[in-house]
Amino acid sequence: MSEHPVPKVVSAADGEEEDEAVKGPSKKEEKRLAKEAAKRAKEEERAALLAQQQRELEGPKLTLSTMDSSPYGSVFIQSEAFTTGRVFIPVRELHNQAAGKKVWVRARTQTVRKQGSKLAFLVLRDDLETVQAVVALIPEMAKFAGALPKESVVDVYGEITTPPELLRGCTQSNVEIAVERIYCLSRAEALPLQLEDLSRTEAELAADPKAVRVLLETRLSNRIIDLRTRANQGIMRMQSGVCTLFREFLLDRDFVEIHTPKLLATASEGGGNVFQVKYFDRAAYLAQSPQFYKQMALMADLPGVFEIGPVFRAENSLTHRHMTEFVGLDLEMPFKEHYHEVLNVMDGMFNHIFHGLMTKYRKELEAIREQYPFEDLKWSYPCLKLEYKDAVNLLVQHGPGVIESDIAAVEKDLAGLGSDVSESDETRKRLEKRKSELLAHLESVKVHKENEDMGTSDEKVLGRVIRATHDTDFYMVTRFPFELRPFYTMPCPDDPRWTNSYDIFLRGEEIVSGAQRIHDPAMLFDIANAKGVDLTPVQAYIDAFKYGAVPHGGGGVGLERVVMLFCGLPNIRLTSMFPRDPNRLTP
Amino acid sequence: MSEHPVPKVVSAADGEEEDEAVKGPSKKEEKRLAKEAAKRAKEEERAALLAQQQRELEGPKLTLSTMDSSPYGSVFIQSEAFTTGRVFIPVRELHNQAAGKKVWVRARTQTVRKQGSKLAFLVLRDDLETVQAVVALIPEMAKFAGALPKESVVDVYGEITTPPELLRGCTQSNVEIAVERIYCLSRAEALPLQLEDLSRTEAELAADPKAVRVLLETRLSNRIIDLRTRANQGIMRMQSGVCTLFREFLLDRDFVEIHTPKLLATASEGGGNVFQVKYFDRAAYLAQSPQFYKQMALMADLPGVFEIGPVFRAENSLTHRHMTEFVGLDLEMPFKEHYHEVLNVMDGMFNHIFHGLMTKYRKELEAIREQYPFEDLKWSYPCLKLEYKDAVNLLVQHGPGVIESDIAAVEKDLAGLGSDVSESDETRKRLEKRKSELLAHLESVKVHKENEDMGTSDEKVLGRVIRATHDTDFYMVTRFPFELRPFYTMPCPDDPRWTNSYDIFLRGEEIVSGAQRIHDPAMLFDIANAKGVDLTPVQAYIDAFKYGAVPHGGGGVGLERVVMLFCGLPNIRLTSMFPRDPNRLTP
Repeated sequence: MSEHPVPKVVSAADGEEEDEAVKGPSKKEEKRLAKEAAKRAKEEERAALLAQQQRELEGPKLTLSTMDSSPYGSVFIQSEAFTTGRVFIPVRELHNQAAGKKVWVRARTQTVRKQGSKLAFLVLRDDLETVQAVVALIPEMAKFAGALPKESVVDVYGEITTPPELLRGCTQSNVEIAVERIYCLSRAEALPLQLEDLSRTEAELAADPKAVRVLLETRLSNRIIDLRTRANQGIMRMQSGVCTLFREFLLDRDFVEIHTPKLLATASEGGGNVFQVKYFDRAAYLAQSPQFYKQMALMADLPGVFEIGPVFRAENSLTHRHMTEFVGLDLEMPFKEHYHEVLNVMDGMFNHIFHGLMTKYRKELEAIREQYPFEDLKWSYPCLKLEYKDAVNLLVQHGPGVIESDIAAVEKDLAGLGSDVSESDETRKRLEKRKSELLAHLESVKVHKENEDMGTSDEKVLGRVIRATHDTDFYMVTRFPFELRPFYTMPCPDDPRWTNSYDIFLRGEEIVSGAQRIHDPAMLFDIANAKGVDLTPVQAYIDAFKYGAVPHGGGGVGLERVVMLFCGLPNIRLTSMFPRDPNRLTP
Repeated sequence: MSEHPVPKVVSAADGEEEDEAVKGPSKKEEKRLAKEAAKRAKEEERAALLAQQQRELEGPKLTLSTMDSSPYGSVFIQSEAFTTGRVFIPVRELHNQAAGKKVWVRARTQTVRKQGSKLAFLVLRDDLETVQAVVALIPEMAKFAGALPKESVVDVYGEITTPPELLRGCTQSNVEIAVERIYCLSRAEALPLQLEDLSRTEAELAADPKAVRVLLETRLSNRIIDLRTRANQGIMRMQSGVCTLFREFLLDRDFVEIHTPKLLATASEGGGNVFQVKYFDRAAYLAQSPQFYKQMALMADLPGVFEIGPVFRAENSLTHRHMTEFVGLDLEMPFKEHYHEVLNVMDGMFNHIFHGLMTKYRKELEAIREQYPFEDLKWSYPCLKLEYKDAVNLLVQHGPGVIESDIAAVEKDLAGLGSDVSESDETRKRLEKRKSELLAHLESVKVHKENEDMGTSDEKVLGRVIRATHDTDFYMVTRFPFELRPFYTMPCPDDPRWTNSYDIFLRGEEIVSGAQRIHDPAMLFDIANAKGVDLTPVQAYIDAFKYGAVPHGGGGVGLERVVMLFCGLPNIRLTSMFPRDPNRLTP
């Protein structure tokens, strides 16, 4: 059994050992060995001294039952029989406490500042809130507190006092704690990254060229510390909120929550981009979507279903929008007469989510906005719905103007390039490339056909056009061309060149793709044939419609995409706690 | 484009084609060919006649805009521009409708009974409810209705009437529908399995040796139909309820919902029973538990976390308790001074779930109970908590009595075996085997040591002992021996032979295994060393505790296990919509 352990002190001499010869030492060798022994003894002495100093800094080692014997020290919580019955106040509630009241607080030491030998100022952090703690009463206690490493976990007892002026550095700006007792529960090692550096905005980085810019890869490799920033705390809580709001709306409408299998016998949808699993002595595949199973659940008489679960895509691409594993929020429901019933439910659902985020997650949104400024989402309820051909018409009509303004901006940047060749050469190349891309895009938009696919850049331009013409960031496009949709999509009854399908857009990016699904097995068979799709691997899916099938539709949205686009974040990896991409499987 | 399709009529002659020789036909051959051609023509004629009859039975083909032209027929819902504005009443609300009121109902034809040529009785099913519909007004309509295949989807319009006596065969026993219009939206093919057969109880099967017993494998291979039984509808809705109640309790206490990665770089926990994934040009592994990531989320400052998500176990065993993929309900939380704070939260959570199921899911429970009779769960809140050594003492003290009663029962069965050798030989062997197992178990229980592992059969006996001595099916066992728990389990502060750990039991089966986790990296390292665990693959986990760590604990429970044990179901596969085991990956 280990004693209450002390973090290992790494000696500078580590790794300096040399191979020792087997033969007896020579005179010269003896001298060298003696010198080394002396050196080693000196180092050991130094290490012992450091350890002694360290022990002094850590104060007395206490337990819950002995902590009354000293106003400061180290306490390791191991669930002893004795408990103190202390009541802890969350930092966010401190401003409600009357001055003079004594409180216990458990928090992290966000900053530690020693002032002289008898005074220490701590900023304590808990949840999205911070408070200042002043350690002044006992010099030894001030020394102990002033030596606490940043990000350590402490229990602090003290009196609520009112600072002479508002504390701008803390969210609790009109109270502080006059510390009477302070105990360290967990001593942090030296941090590989500083929270200040992780929290900087683009504007701050631009204003101060010497400020440390932490690359995304570095963040993700130190994710436990990175996640402690206010913005990331906001993002993680907002994710939880989106899930809660999604379910709240659907459970209220008698939907049933389901969990569909992630291990499949066949690569169901097409077969591209699917991960293969070694399943005992055969192969299995990871589900790329719960769609077929959601539909089968409806055929098994569930009223309307939803699922929140992982979705796996073996896409070997490293864009700002792709991950190999993400969280899908999926729903599927029967409708009575028209698939617009499904769209109306989705419209209500997104309205409920957006409205809920704006009201119940205000604090989290502001924490995100501090580091990643964004404009509030514009949406109306019911939302704008337009047919694909009308969306294309909007793109053709107003898109060129949007792209021309982008070209003008690039030309202005080009004209403004100084004569400093060393720097501007690269920039000029980049701008020229951008300009030629825009010119090509301009030409393609001008002649975009009604039934032609829209690419990501078309969609982004369309988003700006619709923002300008309809003042909204959220809209639905319906009736996509037959060739652009999968075999299970119901064709329009009036014109089979179009389908009963839809995409939903947020800030110019598609977040949902869905449709009325074909619920007649013979029709599924015919259309799959027409599209050249082999139905053998999905026979169970086709069979599900043979024993009485209800008309139905649905769709799914990536949790991380909703969060990213709602807050206009630059990269989807920022919205996943531990993101996965082709290069990253850790931590 | 396919027309509105008609189910394919499979001719009996299919598959009878023979190889045709390349050489010209001989006289004999010609005669044979002529005979075959005649046979084929006759068959085609018969098929055409059948198709004609079928078309007649299906009535006129209508759309939403033309359905007014006929009181019956087939309607295919393809989302036309025209919608009727009909309001549909769920079957469960029909008893609230006044007699004489006209209603639209969309439902399945659970049974179809023709009586003479002018009358048809339908039992319509929707959700967990059924109602009788009487088709009598128009002879052609009665003929149409009487020919509807079971499980078809229909729209029925009619008047609410009061039947002369209560309808015992329907959940809506005091109303029926006098049908004025009836349309088939989706015609079911002949069913491979009947719902009556799928719904039979063990008692009914025992009482009627001729009744069809549907094997589990057959059920699962026809799962879409199997899931339509009342019991399965109850089970699927109860699953949704357990998830909702679990979250409700935790969100109320400021827990944050998280989603941890399922694709991992290393086989984190031990490495046995893990599925391997081909991840581009390297290997990945499917998560066997979210535990490490839950803990890391706490170290990243989330307040308390939970996750509902899939868990993958590559266990090549086919017991009634194991699946290769199941749904984990996991939580992890910091505590202030003692891990019993975690146990208290779990106690409250289970109480909330059990209580919620008993009150809000009464109808679902009764639907399950009709087919799988069970006694209501007995539990108290706060629940019984006992230390491992005390649990062992109970087992040693009272377990032998329980096992002896089982032995006596087996001996009675053996004594009662008749002289019919052909049947009793197998039975005798089985009973003799059972008896010798019980005798062995009896001996082992008598000498069970305080720190010795309990097997599944020990746990079941303990469950019966505790039910008898403490009148509860739900309890927690704490302070497990050090050797029986994983390296990350915090040892007890007063005696390192025991740990701050716990299992939670439901009807004698373990449902949660958890502990206070070690939050000190040096201590983790020491204990892993002592247990001979290589920490290299989980370095990121160890590192997560280096930068200030809070004391914490948690645990997880399988959704399917909770449902199975709450209802005393015989096999966990019954509780999963599409269960996965080593032999089954479909549908």
